[in-house]
Amino acid sequence: MADIRALVLNCTLKRSPAPSSSEVLGQEVLDALGEQGVTGEQIRVVDHDVRFGVSTDEGDGDAWPQIHAKLMAAQILVIATPIWLGQPSSVCKMVLERLDAQLSETDDQGRLLTYGKVAAVAVVGNEDGAHHTIGQVQQALNEVGFTCPASGATYWVGEALQKTDYIDARPKPDTTGRTTQALALNSAHLARLLTEQPYPPPDTRDAATGQRSG
Amino acid sequence: MADIRALVLNCTLKRSPAPSSSEVLGQEVLDALGEQGVTGEQIRVVDHDVRFGVSTDEGDGDAWPQIHAKLMAAQILVIATPIWLGQPSSVCKMVLERLDAQLSETDDQGRLLTYGKVAAVAVVGNEDGAHHTIGQVQQALNEVGFTCPASGATYWVGEALQKTDYIDARPKPDTTGRTTQALALNSAHLARLLTEQPYPPPDTRDAATGQRSG
Amino acid sequence: MADIRALVLNCTLKRSPAPSSSEVLGQEVLDALGEQGVTGEQIRVVDHDVRFGVSTDEGDGDAWPQIHAKLMAAQILVIATPIWLGQPSSVCKMVLERLDAQLSETDDQGRLLTYGKVAAVAVVGNEDGAHHTIGQVQQALNEVGFTCPASGATYWVGEALQKTDYIDARPKPDTTGRTTQALALNSAHLARLLTEQPYPPPDTRDAATGQRSG
Amino acid sequence: MADIRALVLNCTLKRSPAPSSSEVLGQEVLDALGEQGVTGEQIRVVDHDVRFGVSTDEGDGDAWPQIHAKLMAAQILVIATPIWLGQPSSVCKMVLERLDAQLSETDDQGRLLTYGKVAAVAVVGNEDGAHHTIGQVQQALNEVGFTCPASGATYWVGEALQKTDYIDARPKPDTTGRTTQALALNSAHLARLLTEQPYPPPDTRDAATGQRSG
Repeated sequence: MADIRALVLNCTLKRSPAPSSSEVLGQEVLDALGEQGVTGEQIRVVDHDVRFGVSTDEGDGDAWPQIHAKLMAAQILVIATPIWLGQPSSVCKMVLERLDAQLSETDDQGRLLTYGKVAAVAVVGNEDGAHHTIGQVQQALNEVGFTCPASGATYWVGEALQKTDYIDARPKPDTTGRTTQALALNSAHLARLLTEQPYPPPDTRDAATGQRSG
Repeated sequence: MADIRALVLNCTLKRSPAPSSSEVLGQEVLDALGEQGVTGEQIRVVDHDVRFGVSTDEGDGDAWPQIHAKLMAAQILVIATPIWLGQPSSVCKMVLERLDAQLSETDDQGRLLTYGKVAAVAVVGNEDGAHHTIGQVQQALNEVGFTCPASGATYWVGEALQKTDYIDARPKPDTTGRTTQALALNSAHLARLLTEQPYPPPDTRDAATGQRSG
Repeated sequence: MADIRALVLNCTLKRSPAPSSSEVLGQEVLDALGEQGVTGEQIRVVDHDVRFGVSTDEGDGDAWPQIHAKLMAAQILVIATPIWLGQPSSVCKMVLERLDAQLSETDDQGRLLTYGKVAAVAVVGNEDGAHHTIGQVQQALNEVGFTCPASGATYWVGEALQKTDYIDARPKPDTTGRTTQALALNSAHLARLLTEQPYPPPDTRDAATGQRSG
Repeated sequence: MADIRALVLNCTLKRSPAPSSSEVLGQEVLDALGEQGVTGEQIRVVDHDVRFGVSTDEGDGDAWPQIHAKLMAAQILVIATPIWLGQPSSVCKMVLERLDAQLSETDDQGRLLTYGKVAAVAVVGNEDGAHHTIGQVQQALNEVGFTCPASGATYWVGEALQKTDYIDARPKPDTTGRTTQALALNSAHLARLLTEQPYPPPDTRDAATGQRSG
């Protein structure tokens, strides 16, 4: 059975050692993946000097290339993000923009290097915004080549206009916890399938001759 | 002081007499507007034979023209919608599509007939999705000519993955209720301003001669 | 190799025989899937008496149950939708709401009946709105159990504020056409994998005893 | 007639002196506002050391307080942002998060300090994403107290999957240019109205006594 690794990118706005609800949910995802035989680690992006941009290396000490290398070595990417104003965090958007560069990174058969990697999403907020945040992240990651497993997201938010943090609200075994279990089960299964039986390359023979197959 | 009318369009999926949480919040908005001297009424769209389309009259018994006439007679439009899958209801989207026709309805000075009308949004759901639903409705209504007052939305949703309805959860005087009060206060003020001092017409003289004014 | 079927739901607002750009792109997706050995058909939803609601059968002549039966017999669902006001059509939203019922339809091992089905998206508009429309549809379908393949969407829109339809703009072999090919290749591959090696059931033994595994 | 100032925040990812299409459209908005008697300036946010966070001053050399002071002195805020992956830029999201702090800044009568300020949006991209980006920005700014004028956004994007920049595509007098004119005309009018006749304060007397007014 294929050996699967996961990378959780925590997109909180706050540097360590400030407590982070996203980190708590990110760790719960890692733990649930661990029960499926998946190893991995979590990185708090804002602790590193990641630059704004849309290339894989913005130069001048940019910390993204090291994170990118870990991503390339993993089969599952988990984006853990807080919600601000009902939307994903700016740090999350910065990460997605850096992944835009994947659209020009292909193997020798013309497939994106992200093909075969599975993306999951973990979202926390005081109140409201989880579905939209999940949709934003999934759309962006799908566009740059990731596959989204069934029930590929987990989240917690409080009642409208409240201020409780997930870090204080957990555990939620019957709702968020169960959703996290499903995410882990499906992500691990799908990552194994796609590692063992990759997406086929596009039919470049036809593209080269200018003729359509079929 | 200008006489101001409001029209609340309730975009629930359920026909009368089924209870509707959107209708409850829509009525609370009407009551709060009443305290500001605004008269009005609420229509449950799905009780009427409104057709899919993007014109003002789709013909063949289409019920939209009667609702459209009431909208034209009002200075404040309130869209009250439930959340499904974190998004506005299909009935809400149907209403917004019918309003797309406003982009070709102008007065004799080239202004959209919706210019000067104020749009507010009231959203309810079991859990999550309010900010996104508000954003969807505001973007669409702004594009077709409505003005959005400060704090122009009110909402209620429960904690993540819960099933309580607003109809059972209310009243919420300290959160949703206070937000509804702000919506009403600001909508009424802005509608009066724009009724008494309308947006100026575009400088059609210059457009006609092909010269830009200084 | 597993026999795979696709169902394309065309969510145009216009009844047959009005021409539909969504139908054109939907057919191109079906053709591309055909090259991958996938059979299927396209249904124009608005030609059928589908009702607003969130159950699988709203009764009283509701046409959704027949479409639902075809969906259950397919391994790939393609949502083809036009863009209105930068958003998915109301007919598309109506379809997504009907699929909300899938959240309570499970097999005897507790898996959603949609698990293992692959969802793809095809979007057309005069101008702008494709990414957002794709994101809305993917988020909703993923939540109700569908898996999104890498590069699982294809689209065409014109330049900002223009009025050309896809039906007049095609063919676009180097952009939309190539994207459609990738969608078909990846969707067919993923549907075969998940048909032959389904997602595992949740560990209900532990749930039953109230003890956590691991 | 009230003296009106505008502040354009350019949310490109690229530092000066790199060319910026957002800056081009931002300047066109400023020029159009100038024709309405509005003075103002444009700031490229990424040229300044603005920090991630949700307070008005994140300390330690944070450059936001200076930008915030200029915003407080303006009556019109224009967010100019590029589109990445169909969404607003991370720099744009960082700015919106900093504005989240406005929710706790009120005058002595309980009104947000942003009340009375008008928000407009200018968006550019190679292809697709303008409506969604506009909606994201408007929803966030409306929530923190800004008012959105009728037709309060202008944008340009190219045809699907193309790579032309606005900086090379302009001028577009009949589409984006006309939209920019409408934005400026309406923003200036609304800012004057709200400066001369501010939103009324909430009825704190009733709140204090716990009694509702009639």
